[in-house]
Amino acid sequence: MNCEIITIGSEILLGDIVNTHSKFLSQHLNDLGFDVLWHTSVGDNKNRLKMAVELAINRSDLIILTGGLGPTQDDITKEIVAETLNEELIENATLKEIIQFKFKNSDNKIIENNLKQAKIFKDAVVFENKNGIAPGLVIEKNNKIIVLLPGPPNELQPMFKNCVMPYLKKFSSYVILSKNVHLYGIAESQVDCKISNLLKQSNPSVGIYAKKNEVRLRITCKQKTEKECLGKINDVLKQIQEKFKPYIYGVDVKNLETALVQNLINCGKTLAIAESCTGGLVAAKIVSVLNASKCLKFGAVCYTNEIKNKILNVNKNDLEQFGAVSPTVARQMADNVRLISNSDIGVSTTGLASPVKLNNLEQPAGLVFFGISTKKNSSVVKINFQDKFKLSREEIINLAADYAMNLVLKSILNLDGCEQ
Amino acid sequence: MNCEIITIGSEILLGDIVNTHSKFLSQHLNDLGFDVLWHTSVGDNKNRLKMAVELAINRSDLIILTGGLGPTQDDITKEIVAETLNEELIENATLKEIIQFKFKNSDNKIIENNLKQAKIFKDAVVFENKNGIAPGLVIEKNNKIIVLLPGPPNELQPMFKNCVMPYLKKFSSYVILSKNVHLYGIAESQVDCKISNLLKQSNPSVGIYAKKNEVRLRITCKQKTEKECLGKINDVLKQIQEKFKPYIYGVDVKNLETALVQNLINCGKTLAIAESCTGGLVAAKIVSVLNASKCLKFGAVCYTNEIKNKILNVNKNDLEQFGAVSPTVARQMADNVRLISNSDIGVSTTGLASPVKLNNLEQPAGLVFFGISTKKNSSVVKINFQDKFKLSREEIINLAADYAMNLVLKSILNLDGCEQ
Repeated sequence: MNCEIITIGSEILLGDIVNTHSKFLSQHLNDLGFDVLWHTSVGDNKNRLKMAVELAINRSDLIILTGGLGPTQDDITKEIVAETLNEELIENATLKEIIQFKFKNSDNKIIENNLKQAKIFKDAVVFENKNGIAPGLVIEKNNKIIVLLPGPPNELQPMFKNCVMPYLKKFSSYVILSKNVHLYGIAESQVDCKISNLLKQSNPSVGIYAKKNEVRLRITCKQKTEKECLGKINDVLKQIQEKFKPYIYGVDVKNLETALVQNLINCGKTLAIAESCTGGLVAAKIVSVLNASKCLKFGAVCYTNEIKNKILNVNKNDLEQFGAVSPTVARQMADNVRLISNSDIGVSTTGLASPVKLNNLEQPAGLVFFGISTKKNSSVVKINFQDKFKLSREEIINLAADYAMNLVLKSILNLDGCEQ
Repeated sequence: MNCEIITIGSEILLGDIVNTHSKFLSQHLNDLGFDVLWHTSVGDNKNRLKMAVELAINRSDLIILTGGLGPTQDDITKEIVAETLNEELIENATLKEIIQFKFKNSDNKIIENNLKQAKIFKDAVVFENKNGIAPGLVIEKNNKIIVLLPGPPNELQPMFKNCVMPYLKKFSSYVILSKNVHLYGIAESQVDCKISNLLKQSNPSVGIYAKKNEVRLRITCKQKTEKECLGKINDVLKQIQEKFKPYIYGVDVKNLETALVQNLINCGKTLAIAESCTGGLVAAKIVSVLNASKCLKFGAVCYTNEIKNKILNVNKNDLEQFGAVSPTVARQMADNVRLISNSDIGVSTTGLASPVKLNNLEQPAGLVFFGISTKKNSSVVKINFQDKFKLSREEIINLAADYAMNLVLKSILNLDGCEQ
């Protein structure tokens, strides 16, 4: 079944917001087995919206429209669809009551315009809006399905997942499932080379998606049943796991920090972090994960030499002799932050986050030393992030924070011999 | 001049990526005075791409296409535009040399397909691609302007800013300028009430954009000259500044952290941060700003009571008696982190980032205490972020981090009487 998504709103065409609706809807429609062939965005303009709706009805079977269901004069989506399909809009008594009830329980006063939102097509399927006023609507006519959804993401997304997806399942005779394998520390080109055959095959197909520091492999399969899908996906997953074991930090895991927190808790290990150039980002990423308090004991953002000495007991002479950006200081930071907080693992970052080489420094921009310390041993890794890419300050800090987390993860998983 | 943006690529329709190109291009085209009326996304499919190009030529004056300029069989944008306009593609000797030269200096081997990228329309304007192979192209025919741009964002964005925008300026007889006023700590509805007249007027128009913790007012003006534009914008800016002085943290400033670092450096003040529930995010936000090292001395992420006592000298009895999430602990954290690091200002966060109330706790989810300490005095603020909105853990942490930064900013600006 061919689909088209029409997102309505001047703020999209003005470039004030990114069109996240089209991504969200496309992803879920594809997962349901529908083929999304068109995205269209159009403003709150009667003629152009009508043109878009007519075009979509001509060329697509399932049309999803978002936005323009509000109470103002600008909100014309329902009216234009009614006009195009030659359908009437009728006030629905139940919806009217729901709207009146919602206003009764809020600080805002109901206005005549709000009751416009109680008007629906005669044979429409109605989805209640648990986070707002405008209901979702479906109308089926001449073998076309037209779905109207409210614009605010917190109204659209739960309504789509909880109401529209179950409704649309009857039109799809396939199940499509995906699994994502997350790799860190290997280049896209290397992954590409090693599984070029897998990348060429279809059903299950394997897609490769790269960010600057990560590669994600998405295995997707379309079958009659969920069981068949999973069987085929897992066969491919095994092949990928065999080839890339040292680089895989998780399957269907949200991100590196989630994998790290899960593994720290599973192994019963605690962590302490001493950050210079990453400035708290390692700690902040870890704390963003639920239950971080079960594994993170202490994070120290020590930006000056004075504080590195005072808080982390980094040797004053070493700071002077080798400088803050040095393997000696990185190691002491990792060792001491672990000891001070009585944690199992200590990790540190010290480097130059500036994207350009500073005049008064000998060291290149983007150079970072990482210290990793456990009760058995400690080691230092040197990375120059600016060597590979043209990065901004924020990108260097972000890459360095991920690198530090991956060091800890590898240390827990004993992949590089750093035993606990 | 009416514009349409056509983004080409199956990854958009599969929902694998967000369509950031359309936002980027729309924003800049609007700034140039063009009216963007349509966004279309279509896959790497000959028939549908042709349909999209024909439709766009019919209804728009300026058409910008992105993607599909690569060397593979799937890349068909140039060929479809040529076919639709009845134009020939001719190999360009200079481009061929540039491509051969680029491959000579890279690890990759040139393949026959790459030379396809040297083929251009006879009368095309060519923009060199400094970050890739595929050049940008413009063809003007029958009063239509068609611009073809490469898909990767790091190729498209600099090419659009440095080459396409200067090229397009000749088609725009107006200058459009904007200024953004950033407010913190006031609700959108309150702003709306106080400047309803300004929000209704046009040229200069004032747009209101709200995030959960911030309001941005965008003043936009369209005039014949830059000087006229600025004059009219500044008149409105003055009115806004008079009405909202205590809430404005900056004009055309990137974000709260940038405003904070700039103000700290301007006043010659240093900062130390003690974080519990925000887990390093306050420090990380500040460090993301260039020159943060000039004002941030120390950040302590003290997640456990043991560490709050050991590193920040928070009184053990107070921790037991009042709990970590208490005004007493917040104040001690702020005072002590300032004293330990010999900074001018100390700020602290301690609270419950969990979005739901935990069984073993009396305190509500989303409750955060902030301590702010200067050499003259210290104070504590209590906020319940979950009261107002239904927030996730990450959102609560993010709002709390911003709140802490705004406390410091207000303290520097002496707006709430907390003198230095």
